[in-house]
Amino acid sequence: MKANIGLIGLAVMGQNLVLNMNDHGFKVAVYNRTTSTVDEFLAGPAKGTQVVGTHSLEALVDSLETPRIVMLMVKAGDVVDQYIEKLLPLLAPGDIIVDGGNSLFTDTNRRTQYLAEKGLNFIGTGVSGGEEGARNGPSIMPGGNKAAWAAVKPIFQAISAKVGGEPCCEWVGDNGAGHYVKMVHNGIEYGDMQLICEAYQLLSEGLGLSADELHEIFAEWNRGELSSYLIEITANILAYKDADGQPLLEKILDTAGQKGTGKWTGINALDLGIPLTLIGESVFARCLSAQKDERVKAAKILPKQPSQFSGDKQAMIAAVRDALYAAKIISYAQGFRLMREASKEYKLALNYGEIALMWRGGCIIRSQFLNDIKQAYNKNPDLENLLLDDFFTAEMKKAEAGWRKAVILGIELGIPTPAFSSALAYFDGYRTERLPANLLQAQRDYFGAHTYERVDQPRGQFFHTDWTGQGGKVASSTYNV
Amino acid sequence: MKANIGLIGLAVMGQNLVLNMNDHGFKVAVYNRTTSTVDEFLAGPAKGTQVVGTHSLEALVDSLETPRIVMLMVKAGDVVDQYIEKLLPLLAPGDIIVDGGNSLFTDTNRRTQYLAEKGLNFIGTGVSGGEEGARNGPSIMPGGNKAAWAAVKPIFQAISAKVGGEPCCEWVGDNGAGHYVKMVHNGIEYGDMQLICEAYQLLSEGLGLSADELHEIFAEWNRGELSSYLIEITANILAYKDADGQPLLEKILDTAGQKGTGKWTGINALDLGIPLTLIGESVFARCLSAQKDERVKAAKILPKQPSQFSGDKQAMIAAVRDALYAAKIISYAQGFRLMREASKEYKLALNYGEIALMWRGGCIIRSQFLNDIKQAYNKNPDLENLLLDDFFTAEMKKAEAGWRKAVILGIELGIPTPAFSSALAYFDGYRTERLPANLLQAQRDYFGAHTYERVDQPRGQFFHTDWTGQGGKVASSTYNV
Repeated sequence: MKANIGLIGLAVMGQNLVLNMNDHGFKVAVYNRTTSTVDEFLAGPAKGTQVVGTHSLEALVDSLETPRIVMLMVKAGDVVDQYIEKLLPLLAPGDIIVDGGNSLFTDTNRRTQYLAEKGLNFIGTGVSGGEEGARNGPSIMPGGNKAAWAAVKPIFQAISAKVGGEPCCEWVGDNGAGHYVKMVHNGIEYGDMQLICEAYQLLSEGLGLSADELHEIFAEWNRGELSSYLIEITANILAYKDADGQPLLEKILDTAGQKGTGKWTGINALDLGIPLTLIGESVFARCLSAQKDERVKAAKILPKQPSQFSGDKQAMIAAVRDALYAAKIISYAQGFRLMREASKEYKLALNYGEIALMWRGGCIIRSQFLNDIKQAYNKNPDLENLLLDDFFTAEMKKAEAGWRKAVILGIELGIPTPAFSSALAYFDGYRTERLPANLLQAQRDYFGAHTYERVDQPRGQFFHTDWTGQGGKVASSTYNV
Repeated sequence: MKANIGLIGLAVMGQNLVLNMNDHGFKVAVYNRTTSTVDEFLAGPAKGTQVVGTHSLEALVDSLETPRIVMLMVKAGDVVDQYIEKLLPLLAPGDIIVDGGNSLFTDTNRRTQYLAEKGLNFIGTGVSGGEEGARNGPSIMPGGNKAAWAAVKPIFQAISAKVGGEPCCEWVGDNGAGHYVKMVHNGIEYGDMQLICEAYQLLSEGLGLSADELHEIFAEWNRGELSSYLIEITANILAYKDADGQPLLEKILDTAGQKGTGKWTGINALDLGIPLTLIGESVFARCLSAQKDERVKAAKILPKQPSQFSGDKQAMIAAVRDALYAAKIISYAQGFRLMREASKEYKLALNYGEIALMWRGGCIIRSQFLNDIKQAYNKNPDLENLLLDDFFTAEMKKAEAGWRKAVILGIELGIPTPAFSSALAYFDGYRTERLPANLLQAQRDYFGAHTYERVDQPRGQFFHTDWTGQGGKVASSTYNV
């Protein structure tokens, strides 16, 4: 009997997806560049399964039923292209290559088109949920060539997470749509993690709470509207003790990696001209954390004034919770606003409610909260911004005062809260009818003859003022600052 | 007599550079795609000069002495490549093409190498100063193929701004170095403008000051350490009256353009992993200003609580000044930190003190302040971050309290100050020895087996914890979030 699907790349995510597929009755053939890993996998985690090990791509492809489905779980970038080139001569028209790595959506656009020209079907899919999700049910976000969906769908929907019986896996859209949505998912994940870190630092440094006290607080928060996987694991992490009985968390170095899809989300937002400030700050916060040696030096040269919180601790804990919740709403509002622009720009025809559903289980950012987002898009599929939805408007009003209090606490104590405060600036900016960009336009017209529009004239009419009496009448077209 | 230089592109910047060169005794031949513009220029602004008009690229090239110097002042992007292709058959080895537009530095890298292979020399140069700078002395930042510098230098240094007799034009470095530095310059310009806008809005909306009062304040600020071109023109703009006697500024629509080099600086910072939060927020603030219709809608759905400042106005004006100054220091610290990384990454061998000198006159961001930066790099050419320099450390200590006060005012009144507060978060983060990224690393290890380093173990040793007791022993290598 031939295998249903072949998988290349036996790092942790690949191995766990294979075991997950096996559990659901699919026969999986596997290959890994370092072939000893195949043998170790079969002798170890895959022992007793019907997984088929192969030591060459030829053997892998030969072991598959047609249309062949070959899934890549390898490092994003050139490696994917290299495997595609190696697979091309081995596959036949109608066969399917699936890329389950964190590829850049523009690469997936290119690959989908390239393989379509060769008669092959390509799917680029986001897979989220980490090690544990891959094993027990990830969130899966496939896009690419829809002709391939029917063959892949039974496998992917079987192994994906389920919420209320529904699979957290649905067709996302054409070309790079799957990887695009996964990219935004990862950016949002960066944001969620940074927000939790800021709450943690305000409470631990600012309020002087212990890891055990913080464990209780996060466990409590996980029972309310913040209920989510990341809050849950934060509570667990805070409770985890090192060999010496002390909280392990306090032994971990504070330098975070950031090479990946978070920065792509920020770059894409800059490219599309959509404010994605919270995720941007979150990526930069990781970069700053990585400058550990400089920070140690700066801490000596620019020491903080020692100061301590002396108010009502319970009220401040509640305020920090409000800040976390409100800023989280902003982050998702920004992320969905970005997808709305991308859907238009790249013709992805994204379904926002469906995306919220896909994220509500299996993946790292899974949460109760995504149900509320789904509801908002049920009410209005064309919603411009989540902040304009009744439910979220009401939530913001409830959380606003505490949020401001928490940000001010950070400012007073010198504890950085880049994501909390950036979100607040966005919120206040978004609901400001008149921003000071009139001055900016005046400056641009003053030094660069860039022209401006007027509040008392229709949009689309541009005016230039000779501010100094010495400028020319020529409007700028070359010098676009 | 042949012309010394040819210039293509007679928009405002091109015209003014030509007139500037003519004033300094250089004979300039000009060409423009719409040739009637050439005739209008000769009959108008260039009347009575020795400028030579041409109606074809052949005529332009024929009119030049050798080695020929052809300068492009056209829209960045494909247009530059198109002109290069058209010029190639007309030019001879040793001739020079100069691109004076706002090209992306990676394009300039590519073009420098492409033309070198053809025996031609390419220079990509930043030109800053807008309309008026181009006419009377811009800041010029050339880089590319250094073989071309000797021929171009007399012209560029003659027409550039001078400070203390020294030209604001010096060779910046190889390949795209000139456009790289210009890109960062423009990013910093975005930041400077955003900071002024935030000060303006805090004072006008928050403190209820009139345009006339604000004119006085900015004129006063321009006499102190904030003294700069942008503060000066802001004072002038505030004084400018519309036909009806009202401040023109208040008639200008608050939607700013942002397509250009500001976003490239943000993208590059994300790519290099260097926090450039203030410029990032400034770019996004322009994007948000452009969402005018949504903001008008949101202002109704999420109205602000009416509240007013009731404290000491003079003290708060001083605090806003401190915020502007301190945040400006942060912006330049971030910008120079980025250039330091780029210089290493792209092998540009940038001279930071020289760059500060080039910017201190002629360009939009020219200021007193750049002397202080020059001084800092004189003291230590390898300075890691401006914040670690004695002078700036002392300035930050002086401005810090007012800065916090101004940001808190914005938060209390619901006036967005994304750049002020983002800069403050960076400042507090940069001098924090221990950031909460330990929690972030714990989370990444928890869900993705990404491993972490420990504070009690040497750097470079990575640990993985099986947090749940159910995870595997396989560390992640594929799934890099």
